Amino acid sequence: MIDHTLLLPDATSADFERHFAEAIEHSFFAVCIPPFFVPLAAKALKKTPVKICTVVGFANGYNMAATKVFETKHAFIQGAHEIDMVINIAALKSGDHAAVLDDIRSVVRAAHGHTVKVIIETYYLTREEKIAACELSMKAGAHFVKTSTGFAKGGATPEDVALMAQIVGGKLGVKASGGIHDRATAEKMISLGATRIGTSHGVSIVTGQSLTSTSQY
Amino acid sequence: MIDHTLLLPDATSADFERHFAEAIEHSFFAVCIPPFFVPLAAKALKKTPVKICTVVGFANGYNMAATKVFETKHAFIQGAHEIDMVINIAALKSGDHAAVLDDIRSVVRAAHGHTVKVIIETYYLTREEKIAACELSMKAGAHFVKTSTGFAKGGATPEDVALMAQIVGGKLGVKASGGIHDRATAEKMISLGATRIGTSHGVSIVTGQSLTSTSQY
Repeated sequence: MIDHTLLLPDATSADFERHFAEAIEHSFFAVCIPPFFVPLAAKALKKTPVKICTVVGFANGYNMAATKVFETKHAFIQGAHEIDMVINIAALKSGDHAAVLDDIRSVVRAAHGHTVKVIIETYYLTREEKIAACELSMKAGAHFVKTSTGFAKGGATPEDVALMAQIVGGKLGVKASGGIHDRATAEKMISLGATRIGTSHGVSIVTGQSLTSTSQY
Repeated sequence: MIDHTLLLPDATSADFERHFAEAIEHSFFAVCIPPFFVPLAAKALKKTPVKICTVVGFANGYNMAATKVFETKHAFIQGAHEIDMVINIAALKSGDHAAVLDDIRSVVRAAHGHTVKVIIETYYLTREEKIAACELSMKAGAHFVKTSTGFAKGGATPEDVALMAQIVGGKLGVKASGGIHDRATAEKMISLGATRIGTSHGVSIVTGQSLTSTSQY
């Protein structure tokens, strides 16, 4: 259930090589990595069951929809299997639901059936906006809603995961991400309805070893 | 000399309308805003001398070069006059100077003579990497080097501005940005070689009024 995540702006190709090896060793579902490193991942993970997930419109979400579409298409061309797109937070906060819907729908279409997760970035949203974000994601045909980028000041909370699971009602997956540093937190999120966990602490979660990490994710 | 900046992920269209009005009132050189709001800016700033600057590959820089090129082209089509692109920090930290150069050069070509500023995100870089970033920006034909996105844990420092000005030697502009909250800091940066100031505190800098702001920029 773990998307093994490395999205730090200053991570190097050596860090990614190690990250891919960890994903293979611990049989994580996927790696979640920046677009620039998808070709490297495609090489490293060839002939393994580990999927490649990359990010679109990350981490602020206020790109043009056309740019997100372009980034989506090219991610799949380069070997990605899933994408995590950031919702247009600014449009959502402005009450422009038509723009939010168009943005997600354009990306879902560009993904041609591949899994699209919509990062709603709960930290910035009111309860009403969280509900609207989930409803618009469903309407647009996305496959998951996801709590957080890991770049806002707050990540997944139990309350948000429960709310999102309730709104999507099993029709979409729920990915809890941001600040999930240990097994107890991951299990709690799953018990509340999370169907995928995004974390940079996957190794310590599955092995029980505590790792020193500078990641905020 | 001020790029009046609003790049918070959760700023609304009402916030941007106010931002544009401030730029007109105080005769700022430009507004620096997300791609999604360029059409709104083009409308609000029509028949005014205020330029529109938007961001590319923002704020992590690890997009594919092709996506940055797409984002650049469409920004100008929609009415932008300048772009601030984020350097591929991860490629630079990996020592892959060829990828960094190709990334910047592709964007400069796509900009067709429009001003391209390269955000080198000094916070993550060693002294040698800062120098390489400036040299690669020059080699690629960019017009400015810029210190920071405002999204890392640190912004412009006097030392970095002085170093960047020394490396580019007057051939490129130097934009100091990130954490410039008052007039004294802005003037200090200019005395050290900054030729543009990116700040969300432009109004208080020019009027002397202190504003309460939640912006990290």
